[in-house]
Amino acid sequence: MDVREALYTTRAMRRVMPDPVPMEVQARIMDAAVRAPSGGNTQNWRFLLVDDPEVKGQVGPVYRRALETLWATLYAERIAAAHADPESPESKSVLAVQRSAQWLADHFEQVPLYLFGFTQHDASGSSIYPALWSAQLAARAEGVGSALTQVLAFHNDEVLTILGVPPGEGWIMAGCVSFGYPTGRWGVAQRQPAHEVSFRNQWGTDPGFRDPEPLWSPGT
Amino acid sequence: MDVREALYTTRAMRRVMPDPVPMEVQARIMDAAVRAPSGGNTQNWRFLLVDDPEVKGQVGPVYRRALETLWATLYAERIAAAHADPESPESKSVLAVQRSAQWLADHFEQVPLYLFGFTQHDASGSSIYPALWSAQLAARAEGVGSALTQVLAFHNDEVLTILGVPPGEGWIMAGCVSFGYPTGRWGVAQRQPAHEVSFRNQWGTDPGFRDPEPLWSPGT
Repeated sequence: MDVREALYTTRAMRRVMPDPVPMEVQARIMDAAVRAPSGGNTQNWRFLLVDDPEVKGQVGPVYRRALETLWATLYAERIAAAHADPESPESKSVLAVQRSAQWLADHFEQVPLYLFGFTQHDASGSSIYPALWSAQLAARAEGVGSALTQVLAFHNDEVLTILGVPPGEGWIMAGCVSFGYPTGRWGVAQRQPAHEVSFRNQWGTDPGFRDPEPLWSPGT
Repeated sequence: MDVREALYTTRAMRRVMPDPVPMEVQARIMDAAVRAPSGGNTQNWRFLLVDDPEVKGQVGPVYRRALETLWATLYAERIAAAHADPESPESKSVLAVQRSAQWLADHFEQVPLYLFGFTQHDASGSSIYPALWSAQLAARAEGVGSALTQVLAFHNDEVLTILGVPPGEGWIMAGCVSFGYPTGRWGVAQRQPAHEVSFRNQWGTDPGFRDPEPLWSPGT
């Protein structure tokens, strides 16, 4: 698969089938993930793959509670605004994200695979995200959909206990990626155009380009 | 370019030539970047491209001071240990990273292009990193090398003033990516193998796979 197709069609893909992701596919995903750069090339990371129904059965209720908290706190205003004006493009996007995340909550135990990423002694707090995003792009090349969630941070200690993360060593849970074969189709995400969110040399200026010829579109 | 080649050969590439990155290449890089998912699909990000010698001339001294601070604080112990045992593989890696970052400091104004990423109201603080990493992968497909640095956070307010970021709106500088055509060659980064940094279902367990057939190697 061309890198452009991967970059253009790897979007949050939460609705997946229960079919397992074969071990050799997981190995290829992880081998690609660890090639990503990390701050100071410290590679101070750990990856915990979860496919055991018992462990998923313990994390699932925590995810559902965390999502309830998200809707009631950080997203409360956005969701209320979306319900007040459900036909606007922004409202539709908000409600679509909410439905998608709620689908994951309602089917957490049926999703075949989760990947938890952990970092240690990472001042920037961000060293692992290229690796996690590389895992998602490598999965895309294998036909596997994925989505990063960070809401489990609402119940961080509880999740660390379930997963057996040793306390006192400073391991931080950076995020959790769900994986599985999609029920839907791959497509290019609609986004606010790059030139509308980009500046040049000073905040607020024109970046000097408009929408380019698309790098990739279906059928290219 | 195959996605696997991009994932395997996009590593921190700081040593670049002064040749400019053409505007249409920048446009394609940014068009790919904004396809990345963001938390809640909020796309609450801004990208500031810097190629003006005057602006680079203001940021350069700040970067050099920030790097001095990094060597003297967070990296002090690691660097001292590396100098004490310079022949160990870990020491060589530490000293190579230091030389590479110092090269960027010494040549900051000659690097043709920088991309600053900003987020707003992002509880997780990480929503922009897939987009920045996508920009680096898209650049790789164009033959453009890149490296993410976050040391400018040591002098955050100073950088925001130079770039004209409006105070009081909650914009956070998430990182700065340097871009340019490499002086060196692309290669697959040596990393600690995935199975050594991965677990399954519980911390400390065997992940169930060993090194896979490499997804990509030079000449594939």
